[in-house]
Amino acid sequence: MKKVLVLGAGRSASSLIQYLLDAATKHDYEITVADTSLELVKQKTQNHPKSRAIVLDIANEAETHSEISKADLVISMLPAFLHPKIAIQCVAMKKSMVTASYVSGEMKALDAEAKKAGIILMNESGLDPGIDHASAMKAIHHIKESGGKLLSFKSYTGGLIAPESNDNPWGYKFTWNPRNVVLAGQGTACYIENGKYVYIPYHKLFSRIDKVNVEGHGDYEGYANRDSLSYRAIYGIEDIPTLLRGTLRMPDYCAGWNVFVQLGLTDDTHRIADSEKMTFRQFVESFVPAGKDDIKKRLAGYVGIPEKGKVMDMLNWLDIFNDTHVKLKDATPAQILQALLEEKWKLKEGDIDLIVMQHQFEYEISGKKRSLFSSLVVKGDDAIHTAMAKTVGLPMGIVTKLILNGKINLKGVCIPTVKEIYLPLLEELERLGIKFREKES
Amino acid sequence: MKKVLVLGAGRSASSLIQYLLDAATKHDYEITVADTSLELVKQKTQNHPKSRAIVLDIANEAETHSEISKADLVISMLPAFLHPKIAIQCVAMKKSMVTASYVSGEMKALDAEAKKAGIILMNESGLDPGIDHASAMKAIHHIKESGGKLLSFKSYTGGLIAPESNDNPWGYKFTWNPRNVVLAGQGTACYIENGKYVYIPYHKLFSRIDKVNVEGHGDYEGYANRDSLSYRAIYGIEDIPTLLRGTLRMPDYCAGWNVFVQLGLTDDTHRIADSEKMTFRQFVESFVPAGKDDIKKRLAGYVGIPEKGKVMDMLNWLDIFNDTHVKLKDATPAQILQALLEEKWKLKEGDIDLIVMQHQFEYEISGKKRSLFSSLVVKGDDAIHTAMAKTVGLPMGIVTKLILNGKINLKGVCIPTVKEIYLPLLEELERLGIKFREKES
Repeated sequence: MKKVLVLGAGRSASSLIQYLLDAATKHDYEITVADTSLELVKQKTQNHPKSRAIVLDIANEAETHSEISKADLVISMLPAFLHPKIAIQCVAMKKSMVTASYVSGEMKALDAEAKKAGIILMNESGLDPGIDHASAMKAIHHIKESGGKLLSFKSYTGGLIAPESNDNPWGYKFTWNPRNVVLAGQGTACYIENGKYVYIPYHKLFSRIDKVNVEGHGDYEGYANRDSLSYRAIYGIEDIPTLLRGTLRMPDYCAGWNVFVQLGLTDDTHRIADSEKMTFRQFVESFVPAGKDDIKKRLAGYVGIPEKGKVMDMLNWLDIFNDTHVKLKDATPAQILQALLEEKWKLKEGDIDLIVMQHQFEYEISGKKRSLFSSLVVKGDDAIHTAMAKTVGLPMGIVTKLILNGKINLKGVCIPTVKEIYLPLLEELERLGIKFREKES
Repeated sequence: MKKVLVLGAGRSASSLIQYLLDAATKHDYEITVADTSLELVKQKTQNHPKSRAIVLDIANEAETHSEISKADLVISMLPAFLHPKIAIQCVAMKKSMVTASYVSGEMKALDAEAKKAGIILMNESGLDPGIDHASAMKAIHHIKESGGKLLSFKSYTGGLIAPESNDNPWGYKFTWNPRNVVLAGQGTACYIENGKYVYIPYHKLFSRIDKVNVEGHGDYEGYANRDSLSYRAIYGIEDIPTLLRGTLRMPDYCAGWNVFVQLGLTDDTHRIADSEKMTFRQFVESFVPAGKDDIKKRLAGYVGIPEKGKVMDMLNWLDIFNDTHVKLKDATPAQILQALLEEKWKLKEGDIDLIVMQHQFEYEISGKKRSLFSSLVVKGDDAIHTAMAKTVGLPMGIVTKLILNGKINLKGVCIPTVKEIYLPLLEELERLGIKFREKES
C-alpha cells in the first residue's frame, strides 16, 4: 500500500484530495491529510476508509519528520516559501514530493541530491504553472516534429467568473488571492515581438491590451505578464521572434482598472494619513487634482475617460464616490482598495468560477504560415470544487498517481514540460473533462 | 588657535574652504583639508599659510582618529552615510561637527551623548537643507510674532543654469549629481492643500506642475517633492492647511521630462537585454507600441504630445531618435538615459550655474489675508565657485565660524531652524551677496 501525505487542507486542496481518495480505493493508497485545523481536514477526508485525518503544525519539526517518514510521497499545499524546507526532509528520507509552485532557487539546488536519493521533486504541477506547461509543450513538440518553425507564441490565462454568475459591470469577482489581483503587474512587463524586446511600465500596462477571442465563449482582454522571456529557456524556444504571456479579463475590466493605476490607488508603498477617518470619496479626492468641478468630472479629465459611459458606471458601481467610511487605519492605497473590492467582488452563494486559457501559435511549414489556437475553458462545479480548485488540484493528483504507479520514472527537480509527464497528464485531465479545443488554420 | 578638520575636498568644498581660509587669517584658525587625493587638497588650499593639506583615507581608522583628535571642529563633506561614523568619534573626543546632510536616525540617536560631551553636531547646514531652513524660519517667526496665522507655505528650490549659459531647449544642464536628477521624484509625492492630503504618483508628477514667478527673473515650473509633510514638525507649523515643497525647472522642462517618465525611460529596476548592441532609436522604440507610422508619430500619440512643437523639438535635440549606439552593456533604462544626458547636458567652459529659491507664505492678520514672497537667486562666479558650491559651502563655513567664535552655544544635534543660528547665518550670507528679496502684499 502506497502512502501519500498531503500537507495543507485549504480551499485549493478540495479537488486534489477528492481525486486522491477516489484513486486510493482503486490503487490501494492511504491518504493522510494534515493541517493545523482538524475540522478542515475532516471536511476534506469525509471519513473515507482510505484516509487518515491528522492535526499537524509544520513548525513542529519532530512530528513533521515522523509523518514524512511514514509516507511514500509528500504533496505540499503550504505557502511556496515553505516548500524547500519540506523538500530537504523528503530528499533526506528518500520520499518524492509534488507542489504546484514555481521552482525556486532553493528547490533547484536540491536537484543533484534528489537524483542521488532516487526521488522526484515534482513542481509547477497546478494550472499556471502546470497545465499551461503541459499543453504548450505538447503543441510545441507537435509543431517541431511536423517540421514547423515557430514564429509566435502568445499564451493567456485568466481566473474569472462564469457568465451565469457575472452580475457586475466589471465581469470580475475574487476567485483567488485578492492581494495578488490588486498588486498584479507592478513593475515593468517585458516580452519579445517580431524579434524586438518590448517594455511596458506599470502605468501603461492596462491600456496596452490584446483582444483574445475564445470560440464559443466570446471576447476577453489580455494584459502582459511581467515576465514572458524566461519561458524561452523553459520551453526550448530560444529563437522564437514573438513570445508573450498574459492575463485574461472580461472586456472593459482593464479600462476600469487603469483608472485605479492612473490615480495611484494600487500603490502599496506609502500609507494614507488618517485613513480611518476618511470616506471613500475623500480617499479618491486626495488623488485627483482640486478644482471647482464635481469630483467625477475632474477624475474623468485627469485619467482620460469619458465623464459618462461604461468605465464611469464601473466606478460608480464600486461606490468609490460615496460617503461610506474607509475604516482601515493608516493603510496603503492598495490595502484600502482591496478592502473595498473584497466586499464588492465577493462570490455569492451558488456563484461558479471559470478558468480560461488560450495558447496562440503561429508557425511556418514548407514556406506556408499556419496557426494553432489551443483553448481551455473550465467551469467550477460548485463552491468547493471550483474551476480553480480543479485545475490546480487535479494535475497535482494525476502526477502523484503517475509517480506512485511507476508511470513517471524521472528523478530530481522536474516540471511537466517533458513528454513522459505531459502526455499521460493531459490524457487523464481530458478524461476528467479538462480538455483543450484546438483550432488550426 | 582653533583647528578645523575638513574631510573631503571635492567640487562642492571649494567655496567652503576658501571661506574658511579667509576667516583663518582674521580669527587665527588652522584649516586642515583631508582627502584621498593630495592634488585635490592642494588645489583647494593653495599653500595658504593657515592651511594644512593632508592625504587621509577615512577607512584608515587610526589616522582618522588621530586627525580628529587634533581638531576643535570637524566638517564632513563625505557621502552622507559616513557622517554617523565620524560623529561617533567626534562625540567620544568632544569635537563639534558640521555637515550639510539631513539628520539621519543614527545621527539623531547621538543627541543625548553629544549634549553630555558638550559639543554640537550641526547638520543640514548647506543650501537645501540649510539656507531653506534658515530663511523659512525667519519668515515664519516674523509672521507669528506679528500675530499672523499661517495659511499656506509653498517653497521651491532649483539648481539651474544662468540665462546667459542657457543654450539648449531644455533650459537645463547638470550642475549636480546626474543620477539624482534622472531618478528624481520616483515614488509618490505627498503634500497638504487646504487641509486635505494630496498624493501624486510618479507617472503624474511632471504633469501636475505649478507656475512660479520670481520677480526680475521670469517664470519657472515647480513639481512637488516626495516629502513635504515632515516639514510641519521641523518648522513647528503642524496646523498649517497648505504645505508644499517643490523643485524648480525652466518652462517646458517638465513636459519634456514627462515623456521619459511615460515611456519608462527613467526606470532603474530592470535591465535592457543586449543594450550594448542597440541604437538610441531602437532603445526608444522598445518602449513605444509597434505600428506602421513613423516612431515620432507613434511616440507622440502614445504619450500625448503634439507631433510637432516644443516638446518634440526638445526630444529631437537630445538625438534620441538617432542611430548612434547606446554602448552601455545590460544597463537599466535610467542608466542609458543618464549617459545620454550627461553628454548633452554637460557644462561648457564658462557656463555659469544658478540657484533659485522661493518661499511663498500666505497668512491672515487681523482678519486680512496677506502674502510674503521671499526669493533668492544666486549666480555662480565661475566653474569653481559655482552657485551650488557657494550656497552649500558658505553656510557651512559660517556656522563653523559661529561655533568656533562662541556665537552659537547650542549642544547636541542641531539644524539651522533656531534664531541663535539663522539670524547670524543669514546676516553673514547677505554680506557675501546671498540675499533674499522679499515682497509683501
